[in-house]
Amino acid sequence: MLVSELFDPIFGQLAIATATDDRAVLDALCETETALARACARSGLIELGTALEIAAASAAVQRLDPAELGRRAVDGGNPVIALVAELRAVLADRAGAEADAAVHRGATSQDVLDTALMLVASRALGVLLADLGDCTTTIAELARRHRDTAMAGRTLLQQAVPSTFGALVAVWGAGLERGAQRLTEVREALPVQLGGAAGTLAALHPHGLAVQAALADELGLAMPYGVWHTDRTVVAELAGALGTVAAALAKVATDVVLLAQSEIGELKEATPGGSSTMAHKHNPIAAVTARAGAMQAPGLVATLLAVASPELQRGAGSWHAEWLPLLALIRVVGGAASRLRTSLTGLSVDTAAMARNLAALQTTLGTGDQAPDLGHAGDLVDRYLDRRPR
Amino acid sequence: MLVSELFDPIFGQLAIATATDDRAVLDALCETETALARACARSGLIELGTALEIAAASAAVQRLDPAELGRRAVDGGNPVIALVAELRAVLADRAGAEADAAVHRGATSQDVLDTALMLVASRALGVLLADLGDCTTTIAELARRHRDTAMAGRTLLQQAVPSTFGALVAVWGAGLERGAQRLTEVREALPVQLGGAAGTLAALHPHGLAVQAALADELGLAMPYGVWHTDRTVVAELAGALGTVAAALAKVATDVVLLAQSEIGELKEATPGGSSTMAHKHNPIAAVTARAGAMQAPGLVATLLAVASPELQRGAGSWHAEWLPLLALIRVVGGAASRLRTSLTGLSVDTAAMARNLAALQTTLGTGDQAPDLGHAGDLVDRYLDRRPR
Amino acid sequence: MLVSELFDPIFGQLAIATATDDRAVLDALCETETALARACARSGLIELGTALEIAAASAAVQRLDPAELGRRAVDGGNPVIALVAELRAVLADRAGAEADAAVHRGATSQDVLDTALMLVASRALGVLLADLGDCTTTIAELARRHRDTAMAGRTLLQQAVPSTFGALVAVWGAGLERGAQRLTEVREALPVQLGGAAGTLAALHPHGLAVQAALADELGLAMPYGVWHTDRTVVAELAGALGTVAAALAKVATDVVLLAQSEIGELKEATPGGSSTMAHKHNPIAAVTARAGAMQAPGLVATLLAVASPELQRGAGSWHAEWLPLLALIRVVGGAASRLRTSLTGLSVDTAAMARNLAALQTTLGTGDQAPDLGHAGDLVDRYLDRRPR
Amino acid sequence: MLVSELFDPIFGQLAIATATDDRAVLDALCETETALARACARSGLIELGTALEIAAASAAVQRLDPAELGRRAVDGGNPVIALVAELRAVLADRAGAEADAAVHRGATSQDVLDTALMLVASRALGVLLADLGDCTTTIAELARRHRDTAMAGRTLLQQAVPSTFGALVAVWGAGLERGAQRLTEVREALPVQLGGAAGTLAALHPHGLAVQAALADELGLAMPYGVWHTDRTVVAELAGALGTVAAALAKVATDVVLLAQSEIGELKEATPGGSSTMAHKHNPIAAVTARAGAMQAPGLVATLLAVASPELQRGAGSWHAEWLPLLALIRVVGGAASRLRTSLTGLSVDTAAMARNLAALQTTLGTGDQAPDLGHAGDLVDRYLDRRPR
Repeated sequence: MLVSELFDPIFGQLAIATATDDRAVLDALCETETALARACARSGLIELGTALEIAAASAAVQRLDPAELGRRAVDGGNPVIALVAELRAVLADRAGAEADAAVHRGATSQDVLDTALMLVASRALGVLLADLGDCTTTIAELARRHRDTAMAGRTLLQQAVPSTFGALVAVWGAGLERGAQRLTEVREALPVQLGGAAGTLAALHPHGLAVQAALADELGLAMPYGVWHTDRTVVAELAGALGTVAAALAKVATDVVLLAQSEIGELKEATPGGSSTMAHKHNPIAAVTARAGAMQAPGLVATLLAVASPELQRGAGSWHAEWLPLLALIRVVGGAASRLRTSLTGLSVDTAAMARNLAALQTTLGTGDQAPDLGHAGDLVDRYLDRRPR
Repeated sequence: MLVSELFDPIFGQLAIATATDDRAVLDALCETETALARACARSGLIELGTALEIAAASAAVQRLDPAELGRRAVDGGNPVIALVAELRAVLADRAGAEADAAVHRGATSQDVLDTALMLVASRALGVLLADLGDCTTTIAELARRHRDTAMAGRTLLQQAVPSTFGALVAVWGAGLERGAQRLTEVREALPVQLGGAAGTLAALHPHGLAVQAALADELGLAMPYGVWHTDRTVVAELAGALGTVAAALAKVATDVVLLAQSEIGELKEATPGGSSTMAHKHNPIAAVTARAGAMQAPGLVATLLAVASPELQRGAGSWHAEWLPLLALIRVVGGAASRLRTSLTGLSVDTAAMARNLAALQTTLGTGDQAPDLGHAGDLVDRYLDRRPR
Repeated sequence: MLVSELFDPIFGQLAIATATDDRAVLDALCETETALARACARSGLIELGTALEIAAASAAVQRLDPAELGRRAVDGGNPVIALVAELRAVLADRAGAEADAAVHRGATSQDVLDTALMLVASRALGVLLADLGDCTTTIAELARRHRDTAMAGRTLLQQAVPSTFGALVAVWGAGLERGAQRLTEVREALPVQLGGAAGTLAALHPHGLAVQAALADELGLAMPYGVWHTDRTVVAELAGALGTVAAALAKVATDVVLLAQSEIGELKEATPGGSSTMAHKHNPIAAVTARAGAMQAPGLVATLLAVASPELQRGAGSWHAEWLPLLALIRVVGGAASRLRTSLTGLSVDTAAMARNLAALQTTLGTGDQAPDLGHAGDLVDRYLDRRPR
Repeated sequence: MLVSELFDPIFGQLAIATATDDRAVLDALCETETALARACARSGLIELGTALEIAAASAAVQRLDPAELGRRAVDGGNPVIALVAELRAVLADRAGAEADAAVHRGATSQDVLDTALMLVASRALGVLLADLGDCTTTIAELARRHRDTAMAGRTLLQQAVPSTFGALVAVWGAGLERGAQRLTEVREALPVQLGGAAGTLAALHPHGLAVQAALADELGLAMPYGVWHTDRTVVAELAGALGTVAAALAKVATDVVLLAQSEIGELKEATPGGSSTMAHKHNPIAAVTARAGAMQAPGLVATLLAVASPELQRGAGSWHAEWLPLLALIRVVGGAASRLRTSLTGLSVDTAAMARNLAALQTTLGTGDQAPDLGHAGDLVDRYLDRRPR
């Protein structure tokens, strides 16, 4: 899924790739079919034994080559039709005709694919949030350590008045934590999908709502407020939350790159990148590639919002257009978080350079020898540290 | 602000325009300067009498021609510098030198403009949310009335299996209400900005945090978690929430347009639009223009996310790039809500056409004379109605 | 049209606003109706005298208040229906019933609005291209003057190896000239629209194609290859060309901002901006606001591309969604060009600072006292100057 | 590269994937190093024998596992540094120290990666243009066959006045051909990149311009007008051209989906898709998935434009942010073209349904028994067919 083994490592996407690749999607599809069978069994719609057979068959199907499944998915326009056919083929050998009817009971392809993608998203966001957590932990340490490290504040990239590195870093942390908090909320609300052919749960009647609830319970996802085949505000909110995190990540990465400029020299990554031609270069390459990843988010958010208005009871293309951009968005933001973690880990803060640049500013301001006026910089750091979630 | 008197009415933007135009921004800028003076007086930084003089002067400046202020704003790159100069000029006649120093005390241009735009946003979102509320009230009535009105469910724009108009309408309502709920949360959290020249509140020390809190109190905005000059997650979250609402609006408008097609004929607007050449046309023009407005949102969200990573202590262009897209986004979404309200008000539901189209589907399905299998359609309507916020 | 008298001057949009505002659109609408009447007269479809009456009436209608016309445009969903009604009302007093049928002969609203917007675009692009031309003239002078001015080349914002200011400036010029060249081509190909109610030119048969050609001739626009009511590649190409120019403008503005940083100090604008609080600031405010304008382009391009696939014989919202983003795109790019022109005019190049920064790099490279190795920098400048269009 | 073996087939991306995947990029990187060596040999900078050794080593390196190269690319932030190291390692066994210095002579990583991506783009666009060509050939046949097939013209999705299927199809073809023509022009102008460490070609002096020309000649790419490390108008123009083609593809696919609606029934794909639950469905799945692919383009175009303003002599992230979106854009548009080709091939046109729907319109118009007024519909088809490129 969206995997480039050549480029993904550069953008920090190794871990998040594993959580979002073809294999992860196929696993989630099979788990959804299994969970659906269990949920149906809980309402007595199918035998428990049959549900167990379906679970076993799903485990077998999970080992299929995604490429093979992909090829068979063309005619139907989604992988679920081919997956269900495969499940039934496996079951035909194991169980009887009853199993055939029990597989994919009452569901439509979109139910299984939407649910599976929510499962994938939920897991991948776990990876992303862990990296974000590492970033903010490091930032909090930097804020504490540099609470009173004076530096030149720069507005419109011009030296302005004194500030502290701690105050800057507190701004970094506040943005990332706000983003992470919202993403956590959105993640916890990711729902299962179950509506059947046109969203009435007709084939599960009168157990439809019970099966929907049981499916959510089986998979650890939220119970939806209805059937959201064509209400994609769930996806739009997820996209918005990821876009916000991307902006917060890009902010930090941009500042690292700017403060690492040769003429400023206030920050240096622990293991800066080299060049194919210039041995002396100390490129802040983790921040550069974090930025590069985060910069890809806004366009993907726009795509997800633009396709979030599907027609009537199922979108004629808009639903399909959601799958890859959603996975890609999770990956670019996840990769950016991973690269930023690397950038911040062991980040070298050159307080002498900060002092030197600040001295130039003080001279400009005509406050050369005085202690810099740092205002509430320390208070703002304290407030940041006090308020951060634990 | 972004006003086209020629085109705005078509897109339903008359009311939201008044809430977001140059005059609204200028008012908010002046109110912010007044509130800042009051907040400073509460901490004893300036005399209460001086604050009252500033309030009076602001009221005078509020009557300035925005065009004149705009022309004077070019050199500084934002309207606050010129506004403060004007305030001081007015005060010079009324009060003495003390007033001069009391105006804009401790603030930087971004403090005043960010705060003013949050004030404008908060008020304009009130207009938008009222229209959204009217839409969902109408939708709830439609859901109740058509709980059991059977219609052909259509997936990928092909007749699929039976559903009800009530179930479709419940999906509309769920999306809009989710969007409105999040937008309400975001609105309530819109904060004041106060940080001073480089975000340390230096010129207000040791009263900076108190003045920040008092400013929030004066204006009825939220207390920020710090200084967000260059943490634009506040704006990113607002953009995301508006983008989600836009998607929910476009969904409804698209469905109205599709069900109003000549060959389907299930819906008709109360006052459909004519044509310059075709007297027989009944264009669902309110839905068409609601769609047109909502379609402009994703690109604006992308812009706001792309510029939400400003450099160091103040963005060198990214901050400036936020002003007009934010106001434009509020306006296109607000206009779309207004047009959708018009579309839904008095919407004519042709149940005979629904029955006729459904009969064709039943024939295809080979279930011609039977009652259509509506599954949990009614239950889903009931659940929607039970859960909706009041 | 999208006018903010408060903010537009900041973003350099005064001149381009006049070329794209409500008044400009209303003028173009009236000119199109006049030209259509003349074109019909050339084919003998209406009397020449009637065409002259229509021209006179159009001139009267042109003085209408756009706001009034806007209010009347709501029901039809576009301003042409109301405009034609007004034209007929004016003519009723002057000419007889024959004139009534002659007005708007054979056209549909989209014909007149599409044609008028192409006219507006063509004129506004003239303003934009003139500013671009001034930018590149100044750039060519800078390239010539600084052909051999050595500076530190910076990659990933790290000092890398020596280059020249001339070579950098040649890159600026090449990008802007490529963008301007394509925009010129696209401008010259902007076509009239004429198709009638559903694109068959039925009401002008058998003179339809001749009237289409005559309309193009009257207005100085290109003859289209057919009827493009729902083939919006014309608009997509225009959007793409403007997006490219925006990128080229942002590149230059970004470099000016970076080289003007306090710690680098190699460039300074002729009239840098001040601050509401910091007297010593020399903000490169023209470049900053040029950047801010250009940054708004990609989202608008995405909108125009996303709506460029209208349904069947006329889009149900996608067409309407095009009007304001197209005008906004022209304006933000035009404004950015104007601001960049200001930034470049009298741009101060501090060759001593360049030498100082370069000396630091030479020390790092261990080539301290040697002449910097400038390779083909001069040749690249020469090649740029030789190749530039005149 | 962005490969999802599970989903790509659904979106028609099998062929275009092969042209844009990791292997294709690795091949192009190696070919570029080989061509650079040959170009250097042509200027006498290295021995011809050494160039041949490098070619042989490149062929060996081409067989590397992209994943392995990707892992080694993290530190440098791009795959070229690791690739060059590998090339030198292979050569160390075969040739002497002279070869070591001859590899990657005078180039920087960006030279090789930019050139390789242009090579990949050029080849992949060949695949895309072939599919587009098949689409327009089929469309021309449809236009010819249905020149006089009357149908109801529909505006704002309401029946309007009569038109012909030929006239609609001519609009489809005109858009696709305009898009293809521009894409062909852009493809032919795709240039090599060669600038060295900071764009002065210093390490190749005085042969730099000659080597640049020879490199273009070796690879069959265009000679650039300079060094475009940080002038990305090349990429912006490519993005714009692809965005235009996507819009033209989406237009056709949307119309197929709309005319295939159950209630309209005028078109049917040759092999419509089934459903996991509804045996009677005839989903126009090729058009649906073509739409889905094309809908992903505008966001990617916005990303490419937003990052097209890299800093000074090499972008600090913006360059890196270009790689995957560019390849993804080529792939989604290429896939959409492939799916549309499938949709159009054997497309079934139900002229009886067209006649039936038209009859309803004629009744509405009160022209029931008369021949429909088709105006210049046939002439427009003829003009389209006459003008199309051969």
